[in-house]
Amino acid sequence: MSELSRTAEVPVATVKYYQWEGLLPSGDATGPNQADYGAGHVRRLRLIRILREVGGLGVAQVRAVLAAMDDSKLSHHQWLGVAQHALGPPPDSGPVPDDVTQARIEVDRLVADLGWNVSAEAPSRRALADALVALRRLDRDVDAYVFRPLAREAAAIAERELGSSEPGAGRAAAVEGVVVGTVVFEAALIALRRLAHEHYSSLRSKAR
Amino acid sequence: MSELSRTAEVPVATVKYYQWEGLLPSGDATGPNQADYGAGHVRRLRLIRILREVGGLGVAQVRAVLAAMDDSKLSHHQWLGVAQHALGPPPDSGPVPDDVTQARIEVDRLVADLGWNVSAEAPSRRALADALVALRRLDRDVDAYVFRPLAREAAAIAERELGSSEPGAGRAAAVEGVVVGTVVFEAALIALRRLAHEHYSSLRSKAR
Repeated sequence: MSELSRTAEVPVATVKYYQWEGLLPSGDATGPNQADYGAGHVRRLRLIRILREVGGLGVAQVRAVLAAMDDSKLSHHQWLGVAQHALGPPPDSGPVPDDVTQARIEVDRLVADLGWNVSAEAPSRRALADALVALRRLDRDVDAYVFRPLAREAAAIAERELGSSEPGAGRAAAVEGVVVGTVVFEAALIALRRLAHEHYSSLRSKAR
Repeated sequence: MSELSRTAEVPVATVKYYQWEGLLPSGDATGPNQADYGAGHVRRLRLIRILREVGGLGVAQVRAVLAAMDDSKLSHHQWLGVAQHALGPPPDSGPVPDDVTQARIEVDRLVADLGWNVSAEAPSRRALADALVALRRLDRDVDAYVFRPLAREAAAIAERELGSSEPGAGRAAAVEGVVVGTVVFEAALIALRRLAHEHYSSLRSKAR
């Protein structure tokens, strides 16, 4: 286990914790205090770390993503759905306020108008509605169409990204690609947008 | 306080907690168990809620954002920098692994190549380097230029967004606009990209 810890650059205590939480299978016991770990363990451990550190996922979310990863009956497209469900936001835990319900109806209309074929339960519909609710609670007089320019830009990004993934890749690689594509490139996109904001803001403050 | 709680749709216990944490100023005491709260309190409370729930910020990050908001000496552009610093990622808390250092050098080169005028300490540089490190730790043979297409798309988004903000707006509105623009539209962008992924993935799976 100490070798596994070194190779994956994850502390031994963390490895034990992940095993305890059922995120990482045990190694093959070779003695009372010894077990064999393979390349699969290292890879899984690195993936868990990325989901936790880059994606900011909780242990329960990581468990859901990994469980779906191990379900060989899912197609690539179903997989994406499962991964997105696991990535959240979580389902409603109580009564939904009226303004949230209203925002969800508007978001559904926007998605339909965009011609996007997206399942009715996609958690990102709720996430987008939450963003709309947030704007309105800050007294912005906006409807869901405030997101239309961003929707076009997001569509261009997604179309390019899907086009560059390799459909012929093996299942494990494809599944990992979905998770990495969602979590890592999402983090990259956020970072790049913030950097670009700073750049254009500096141009503007110089122009004044 | 119960009226403030109702108006801002935040539980009384949460209002007390925010006061205790110094995020929300006390009201003007009008009796032993009574205090006056104004529209400023409601607005601040809603902003805190959005930073917490939509932005996923911790209490310490919220405190940093609010402190900068209350600092009247900052220009709009400085403000953006402060908000972005508060939004993280946090500074290094220990020694930096070699692969992270290497990734940061490459990200700096990419940012310079893009011609972006961004401060050397911008936390998003580190966030982008972390994304690159994550890809490499999963055995992807990539360099920082893997983010170049996304950088162009992010630049287009940021340029449009900055162009549509009102430079003539009052200070409070402008400051709030930076925070909301970063946190809320970031959440919206992530949601839209995930929805668009599902859409293009469904087109692909049908075509097969």
